[in-house]
This record gives sequence, C-alpha cells and structure tokens, in this order.
Amino acid sequence: MGKLEDIVSLCKRRGFVFQGSEVYGGMAGTWDFGPLGVVLKKKIMDEWWRFFVEERDDMYGVDAAILMNPRTWVASGHTATFADPLVECKECKSRFRADKIADGITESVTTEEFLKLGVKCPVCGKENWGPIRKFNMMFATHVGAVLPEDVAGDTEVAEKSIAYLRPETAQGIFTNYKNIVDTIYPTLPFGIAQQGKAFRNEISPRDFILRDRECSQMEIEYFVAPETWEENFEKLRVMQHEFLEDVMGLPADSIHEYEVPADDRAHYSKRTIDYMFDYPNGEEELMGLAYRTDFDLMNIQRESGKSMEYRDKMTGETFVPHVIEPSIGVERLFLAVLSSAYTEDEVNGDKRVVLKLPENLAPYRYCVSPLLKNKPELVVKAREVYELLRKKYVNVTWDDSGNIGKRYRKQDEIGTPKCVVVDFDSLSDDTVTVRERDTTGQARIKIVEL
Amino acid sequence: MGKLEDIVSLCKRRGFVFQGSEVYGGMAGTWDFGPLGVVLKKKIMDEWWRFFVEERDDMYGVDAAILMNPRTWVASGHTATFADPLVECKECKSRFRADKIADGITESVTTEEFLKLGVKCPVCGKENWGPIRKFNMMFATHVGAVLPEDVAGDTEVAEKSIAYLRPETAQGIFTNYKNIVDTIYPTLPFGIAQQGKAFRNEISPRDFILRDRECSQMEIEYFVAPETWEENFEKLRVMQHEFLEDVMGLPADSIHEYEVPADDRAHYSKRTIDYMFDYPNGEEELMGLAYRTDFDLMNIQRESGKSMEYRDKMTGETFVPHVIEPSIGVERLFLAVLSSAYTEDEVNGDKRVVLKLPENLAPYRYCVSPLLKNKPELVVKAREVYELLRKKYVNVTWDDSGNIGKRYRKQDEIGTPKCVVVDFDSLSDDTVTVRERDTTGQARIKIVEL
Repeated sequence: MGKLEDIVSLCKRRGFVFQGSEVYGGMAGTWDFGPLGVVLKKKIMDEWWRFFVEERDDMYGVDAAILMNPRTWVASGHTATFADPLVECKECKSRFRADKIADGITESVTTEEFLKLGVKCPVCGKENWGPIRKFNMMFATHVGAVLPEDVAGDTEVAEKSIAYLRPETAQGIFTNYKNIVDTIYPTLPFGIAQQGKAFRNEISPRDFILRDRECSQMEIEYFVAPETWEENFEKLRVMQHEFLEDVMGLPADSIHEYEVPADDRAHYSKRTIDYMFDYPNGEEELMGLAYRTDFDLMNIQRESGKSMEYRDKMTGETFVPHVIEPSIGVERLFLAVLSSAYTEDEVNGDKRVVLKLPENLAPYRYCVSPLLKNKPELVVKAREVYELLRKKYVNVTWDDSGNIGKRYRKQDEIGTPKCVVVDFDSLSDDTVTVRERDTTGQARIKIVEL
Repeated sequence: MGKLEDIVSLCKRRGFVFQGSEVYGGMAGTWDFGPLGVVLKKKIMDEWWRFFVEERDDMYGVDAAILMNPRTWVASGHTATFADPLVECKECKSRFRADKIADGITESVTTEEFLKLGVKCPVCGKENWGPIRKFNMMFATHVGAVLPEDVAGDTEVAEKSIAYLRPETAQGIFTNYKNIVDTIYPTLPFGIAQQGKAFRNEISPRDFILRDRECSQMEIEYFVAPETWEENFEKLRVMQHEFLEDVMGLPADSIHEYEVPADDRAHYSKRTIDYMFDYPNGEEELMGLAYRTDFDLMNIQRESGKSMEYRDKMTGETFVPHVIEPSIGVERLFLAVLSSAYTEDEVNGDKRVVLKLPENLAPYRYCVSPLLKNKPELVVKAREVYELLRKKYVNVTWDDSGNIGKRYRKQDEIGTPKCVVVDFDSLSDDTVTVRERDTTGQARIKIVEL
C-alpha cells in the first residue's frame, strides 16, 4: 500500500482522477474521473450491480431523480437534523466546523461549551467567536420560475420552491417501495438497489476522494418480516465480505467490522456494523450495514398518509416490513481498490510502481505492442493480434510509444495484467511474448492460445 | 407506435417509469426509473458506451462532477444567455414562459412586443402583465459554509459561493481536454465522451420524459484539425445512423435529418443537424450533431489564461483544435426506443400489447416457467432450465404466476423475446416449448440447444 500522496499523484499522472474544474483553479470537494478512472469506476459499479442485483432473484433496481419532493427530507429527518455545528470568527469572518477545530467535543456541542475551551481562530489566531449555528449539509436550490431577486428577498415564492440535492440515495428507494410492491408483487424478503449521485455540503472537504461534496453511492434497502431481521442481517453481512474480498479483491485483513455501540447508533437502529478499511492515512469507514427497523417506511406512511403495509401472500397477514441497509460509497471503494493494488518494488535495481488490480477491474486486460514501431510488418501483425484480443476482451489497449521498457513501466502503473509483444519470430511461428505484470515473467505463447 | 398516454400507462403499470416523488404527490419535471426501466436505461447507455468508446481507438471517457467552478458557465456563455423570457400576471401572480403562451414570438421577445399581442392570462383570464424578465434555466445553489440567512440577505458570502448544477455534460468534457492531452497524448482526431446527469429548470416541464428538469446526457466532443472538419462531420453523421438504426433498432424512416439553417444556428456553428424523431405526439428532436469550431476551447483559453493548443506530433505545428459534437439525451432515446417497440395487435380475437424491443435492449431475454406451479417435478425442472439460461444470458426472469396465457401477456408487455415453458414432456425428453414474442409461434426445442 502506498502513501496517499503517491496515489493522488499516480491518479493525476495516468488519468484516473483529476481535481474538479482544475482548469479554473478547482472546485473544492469535487473530482473528475479521467479516461482510466471512468473505466475502473464503471467496472466497480457494474460488478456491484451484477453481484447484488442481476445474479439474484430477490433484488430489484431503481434509478430515482436527484431532485426530490422536499417532504422526503422532512419525513426522513434530514431537514431538522442533517447538520454540522458552524462557528464564525468575528474578527476575520472565517467559518469552521466547531468539532473539527477543538478536541474532545462532538457535533452536538453548544455555544457555551465551545466558548469555555479557549479555542483560537486557525486563520487569524484571535479568540472572538460568534454563536454555534446548525449548518444543514443539504445543498438547496429553487425549482420553477423563481428569480434571484425572489430568493434574496426571502419571498414566499422562494420559500415554496425550495428543493435539495439528495444527500443519500436511500430515500429514492424508500419512496419507490410502494410503486414496486404494487407493480412487481415481490415476495419478502426482497431488496431494492440504487446507484447514483448524492451531495453533501461538507464545511471542509478533505482526504482526496474520501470526503467530497459530490459522491456516488450504491445502496440496498432489504425488506424483511420483522421477526427475521437477525438471519437476514447475517446473510447480508456475509455477502458484503464476499463482494469486498472475492469480487473487489480487497485483502480480508484490511477490513475490520466495527459493531457500533447502542449509544453511537441512530436511535431507531438495533444493530449497525461499520466496515472500516486500512486506508493509506489510517482506518476509515468503507461501508455500513444497518438494521433500520421500520423507521423509514413509518416516516413515509405518516408524512404521505399512504399505507406502507405489505400483505403476505400465504398468510394474508399485513405489516410494515423492516429494513436492513448495506450502503457503500463508490469513491471510498475506488480508493480502497487503488490503495490495495498500489505496490512499489524493484526490478533490475530500479524502483517500479505497479497497480496489482484484480483482472476483473483492470482498465485494460491486455496491452498489445509491436517490438519496434518503425517496422511495418511488425505493426501490421501486432494490429491483427490487437483486433483479435479486442473482439474477445473489449478492454485492450495499443501502445507503440517509446521503447519496450517504458511501455512495461506505463502498463504496470495503470495495472494492465498482461503485455503482448509482437516481434520478428511472431512473423514466422505465430507466437508472441506475454509479459506478466505482477511477476514481470515472460513466456512465449501461440497467438491462438491467448 | 402507440399513443403517448398508452406508453406512459404501460411504463407505470410494468415498472419502467414512475412519476418522481410520487408518494408525496410528485415533483414536477422529475421521473424515477423502476426495476425494468433501470435495466432498459442501463442497456441503452452501455450500448452507446460500447459503440462509441470501448470499440474505438480514438475515444476516451471522462466522468466530471455535476458541480463545476462557476467560471465554467461564464466562459461558455450560459450565465449570460441560457435564459427563457419570463412574464408574470400582476393579477394572479402566475408566471409563464412568454413565448409559450402567445403565437408567433420567439425567446427574444421584448416586453413592448409582448404587450401589443393582447394575451390573456391562461390562469385568471385577465390582461395585466409585468415586464418580460430573463429567467436563467441553471439551478443555482451555494457551496461551502453559507447559511440560509446569508442567501436571503443577499450577502457577499452568498454571492461568492454560488454554483450551478451543470446544464449540459459538454463543459465537463471541454474543461478536461487539457488534462487528457497532457496525460494520454492522443493523436488528432480524437473524441472525449461523457455520460451523466444534466439539469435545466424548465418553466413548464411537459411531454413525459421528453422535457424534464433532470436528464441524462451522452455527449462526445470530437477534436479535429480545423481543415478536416467536413470529413469528420460526415464520419460522425454516418456513425449516428448506425447507432440509432443498427444498435438501438429505431426505424430509419422515423429519423429525419434537419439541416439547421444559418439564421437558426448558434453564431459559432458552421453546420448543425438536428436528428428529429417521429414520437407519438409528433416530430421532436432526438439528438444533435453540431460543428462548434474552436468556440469552446477558445472561451476556456480566454477565461482560464491557459493554452488550449494541441501540438501535432508529426509536423510540430500548434493550433487549437476544432470540435464536432454529437449529443443525445438518454430519456429522449429511451422514449424513442419504447414508442417504436410499442405495438398493439390481435391474438385469437383479443387485443394484445407487445413491446417489440430488439434482443440487445429487452430487459429480459428469456422468461422461464413451469406449465403448472403446483407440480413440484415441473418446478424443479424449470428452475434447472432457469439457472442454466441465467448463467449464459444474465437477464432471465422467472414467472410462475397465474396461467400461461397471462404470463405470455405480461412478458409481451415488457418485451421479453422468448418464453420457455417446462411441461410433462420435458421430464422425459429434455425438450421445452419456446414461444416467440413477435409471432406468438411456438416450437419444441432441446434444452441443450437453448
């Protein structure tokens, strides 16, 4: 595992991740995925979708809008409580998240408690604080024919038109629960899955793509009969490990289950596991698995006035299902995959950077090259091999830049498992050199056997 | 092709598309994709990505953030001109897009011109209009520690923190052009492709998913040497037809190329083709192909102060590339695919609704059923066939509800090309009945030959 700065540097150098809006000096808390990053991100998301949705009989997908009716967030509690404590320095007007500039306090710190701590402003060094204010992390916007002057004037039309960028994909699932029960008639237990963007206005985004303002989530709400929650929780717990270790190739000993104690859990949750991962900068949350009881469906039932009951097809019994939620951030998983794969070793006395990505995630499975780019007969033969492999594996790249050594170094850095080189022998015996990324070992292989 | 209301009804009934936030009475201009809609949308997007990016050597992907540095929209002209004419009835306070409530005027109508027309308010019937104001269609939000009272007070901190939800994916490509040139060293001509959400605050969203406030776009910016634009335009023009007709299965005679005349084109464009499609409610734009010259890169160069020049590897010549842009909305394509597939015919004297989707887009390729669900030996055998087909084709569904006739009707409505039925003969001779969606013809086929 490399240091975070080495991974950030590789991401930029090789086109995995760029700073958002970099050409204009950036946009704090946003990141753009470059040509290789898009492929890796798409593969991670597609593998999740295949594993949790396509290959199962009990999972259904949805893709809900990012802009939702604001009553969604009243019902879910986000409007009232999705907030961080904001404090302003009266001297220099800088604003901070109070619990990040002082030790030993939590998000629920009061002004009185904070003022006692004698904190100095990290910008101007003075100690002259305003009151702690609740800063809601949802991004607000206005939908419909509302002009900037309506908003600045705090008018009724502005107030009525307010909407939020969803802070989580989960509520797009819960609000469609009834649609799916009424059209698909699924049998309990069943899950509804969603992948998509979510937005959180972090006061201080940091740690590369770990704490950004715009992220992609992959969430499942798994609906169960209340008395079966424990067995289903265990089933999903095991599935997460299978996915993280067998499909994503993360080392089992870098993943730590943390049983969230009752005091730290949301009040409605009877059990929550945080899956912690050993990131380059230390242990951080990778994903969560939470038993949410019937909290969300009951909130929707109350706010909407519509029944969220499910009718058991066999017994005729009706009840509001309980829910278990596995939730993962794509960027967190992306960084876990990259940092596990990042390796530095030595080849012939030179330092080598190599991304040991699993084959199913590597942006390119093969790189094809002619030994020399100025020999047309080699280039023609190499193009034939390239076209052949592309038909079979799709993600195949062509590289005829620099010398072979430089090409290997580049393909190692972007995680290509195999480099195929066409040389003069290839012309007579239809074999090629296949060089392995992880071992740097080379073998002579018949083209038809690739 | 069906009527729009029949397609909307099918979409809701079978879980393709639901109204956004329906449980709370909706959210105008937003739509949620249900279990079948997600699959169809994902297949459409994946086919586009495969055809335009994965299978080509000259295309690279990006996935840029939705929240971009606001200078992006100053440079692109959106801040100044991405606006509709808004007019307010002084009597009832209703607001309208002026050019939609009067005939024969355009988006550039002035207050004076509008008042002369004698338009009555569509809501209260009176004629007492305020001035025409420019209503910018970008959704604004505030990024960073900005409180609602800052915004309502129109403070400096509010003004400085403003950001917009991107109104198009194109600018996320242009702003990454230099990153890609500097990391991937592509050779002209090359394209950068992006799929993702874009947001437009339409004053009056309408026509189902055709004119929504939140949509998914698939755009390519194809960078070329200035003198080669015509040949590359033609190459891309032909590719669009191949994609729409051969990959999406749209009937060629429903697609009409409309050469936008010079007066109607953006001032910088030297050629634009709108691809019109015969939707149920009439001809509407499906996609566009525009030669944008060096307009966008020059804007970025001016606004950022950074060179957007490309250096030709052979000649050493440097210049700012020109751009050809194929741009398509996923929802528009989704509706084109659905409405071309929607067919009503008669089977044994009964009306039948059938979605004649091409095989590569159908949410399920096969449906497997036991003839009778209360015969365990049939169910066991059918499950075997189901598991076998799922391994091979992934998108396979199981249906043992109702009787065979009802199952066929349901699978016809969701576009499943083949229904496989396991009956008593299957137990002895390992054959099944395969029923074709389009012809309703049935054949006896060996399981191994499926």
